[in-house]
Amino acid sequence: MNKQRINDVIDKMKKEGLTQIIVSSTASLYYLTGYWVEPHERMIALYLDASGKAVLFGNEIFGLNSMPDLPLICHTDSENPVKDLANVVKAGKLGIDKFWSSKFLIELMGLRNDVVPVHGSAPVDLARMFKDEPEMIMMRHNSRINDQVVGTVISMLEDGVTENYLASQVNKLFLQNGADCEGTQIVCFGANGADPHHSSDSTVLQTGDSVILDIFTPLNHYWCDMTRTVFYKTVSEQQRRVYDLVKLANETAISRIKPGVLLSEIDKTARDIIIQGGYGKYFTHRLGHGIGLECHEPPDVSLASDIPLEAGMIFSVEPGIYLPGEFGVRIEDLVMVMEDGCEVLNKYPKELQVIL
Amino acid sequence: MNKQRINDVIDKMKKEGLTQIIVSSTASLYYLTGYWVEPHERMIALYLDASGKAVLFGNEIFGLNSMPDLPLICHTDSENPVKDLANVVKAGKLGIDKFWSSKFLIELMGLRNDVVPVHGSAPVDLARMFKDEPEMIMMRHNSRINDQVVGTVISMLEDGVTENYLASQVNKLFLQNGADCEGTQIVCFGANGADPHHSSDSTVLQTGDSVILDIFTPLNHYWCDMTRTVFYKTVSEQQRRVYDLVKLANETAISRIKPGVLLSEIDKTARDIIIQGGYGKYFTHRLGHGIGLECHEPPDVSLASDIPLEAGMIFSVEPGIYLPGEFGVRIEDLVMVMEDGCEVLNKYPKELQVIL
Repeated sequence: MNKQRINDVIDKMKKEGLTQIIVSSTASLYYLTGYWVEPHERMIALYLDASGKAVLFGNEIFGLNSMPDLPLICHTDSENPVKDLANVVKAGKLGIDKFWSSKFLIELMGLRNDVVPVHGSAPVDLARMFKDEPEMIMMRHNSRINDQVVGTVISMLEDGVTENYLASQVNKLFLQNGADCEGTQIVCFGANGADPHHSSDSTVLQTGDSVILDIFTPLNHYWCDMTRTVFYKTVSEQQRRVYDLVKLANETAISRIKPGVLLSEIDKTARDIIIQGGYGKYFTHRLGHGIGLECHEPPDVSLASDIPLEAGMIFSVEPGIYLPGEFGVRIEDLVMVMEDGCEVLNKYPKELQVIL
Repeated sequence: MNKQRINDVIDKMKKEGLTQIIVSSTASLYYLTGYWVEPHERMIALYLDASGKAVLFGNEIFGLNSMPDLPLICHTDSENPVKDLANVVKAGKLGIDKFWSSKFLIELMGLRNDVVPVHGSAPVDLARMFKDEPEMIMMRHNSRINDQVVGTVISMLEDGVTENYLASQVNKLFLQNGADCEGTQIVCFGANGADPHHSSDSTVLQTGDSVILDIFTPLNHYWCDMTRTVFYKTVSEQQRRVYDLVKLANETAISRIKPGVLLSEIDKTARDIIIQGGYGKYFTHRLGHGIGLECHEPPDVSLASDIPLEAGMIFSVEPGIYLPGEFGVRIEDLVMVMEDGCEVLNKYPKELQVIL
């Protein structure tokens, strides 16, 4: 158990008016206990109350051990997994992890009609939004690997190469660099880049294509995520104009990041630049997302996100312009808010590159 | 909407005493509507009542369309996704999909305290347990591809090859054959095969190894799943004895499959053979699992499964013997129950093979 993180969560429970919660999501459990369990249809649940009492409930096939500060109660596949949990929770409001399967909640309500289930993910989500020192080290390290992978993949651009081939190279490079699984990526050539969520296919690289490489993968459970756009053999005037605008939006937004500024203002900074450049309606998504144990987690970096930046937040800054039928440009960095500004975790250059 | 499947589900709702249900799991929604949506943190939900009324609720980014027989109500990311659903459900018992995220159920209970949530997956799960003609065709086709992939991978066994390399070849072969994603597999050499869920690693193939290839992948959303065990260059007396026993257990169990026989009897048939051969305690898992839109779905094929076989069920028959520190053998086929027995979907031979 990570005592400091538990105390932080309890503090946030009190602010949310919660005296007891159930934590079940894989990332949140790992954050608090160090156990990474993907339970699929089975149940794992950490009960935590505001006095600091914690009990872990899990299936015996998860191979968990009890710890001095974390009693463990195991069930088997032939037992009702909720029964023991129902004996531990107290009457009244009980905060429930947002993704807990309804079958367990229904079972719990059947056994304990004096318990009132309410939304209960906020305390852990808010704690996870501020990275501590070991997390910062991991996030820096992983972005360093992503820098290398992007560089290697860009060096593979040549006549005849397909999106699928590059994607498979990304996947392999991450495995070779110790990723938890094969890499994941969005690789787009030319007009495919106008779809921000294009799935790579057998499209062959052509002279004049913009090439979007958006690479995101967990290493030791923490995600990296970076996007670079380069041009193959030639770059048109319009491509250059769009690229410069996106780069300016990315860099200006990053230059405004420091504690106290609202997240919505960071989005607006980038968006205003693209609007003023005449491409506002082609920047179709929010500026970014928090990242850590999940690729998308709080904070939200959008016009609707009226919370102030605080040191320890890590999120993406990824403005893009998507011209249907023509091409797309996106430039994405991860940034970590520091007391006096921010640290940009990705070091791969952003200067316009034409690959010859 | 698949009218026949909907009617089948309504029939099973009545047997379960349910007048209204919410279906949210990706596979079940696809089964009924033809839409394959992985909603992640967003909401998709099909409301179905016993009169046949159906309404689909989804986020507008899913790109769904309403159909003549399926009204669609869309919400955006900035709206409460449960609000419209709360206007449609009726007071009283409401069957809830087992994996629906608790955050939606808690929201619904807050808006409608006259609704009583109960377990509600059984009607669709029971309907999906019996494959109809298009599903049978798909399952046959996909097992044919798995037969080919297994044959190709076995031909790649040679000095110096690693588990990871073979695994990556499986993954690639499935993509080349039109799989929905890269293939998934368990590849084990030698003592690694004693762990039924071994993750492939950099272990190098050695003379005398048993090689377990367990390959399972979705194609057009329907899964194939087959295991073969072969021996590299030599086979010991004990390996031969264990292989023959597992093969006899697999074939004898399959020969007993016909409507009316209990699933537990099929497990017992295989298990008794392995027990009588002296290896009972090394057969550490159930005989098999139902398969279709999910790799593991009802029916359960175990000693605890006291339901009779019926035509249209498809499940795996996969006895295994796992000798810690030494080797493992597993032989798995998918079978489809027919009126007069069963059809074995996998055609790759089961004769003992020593790869020279």
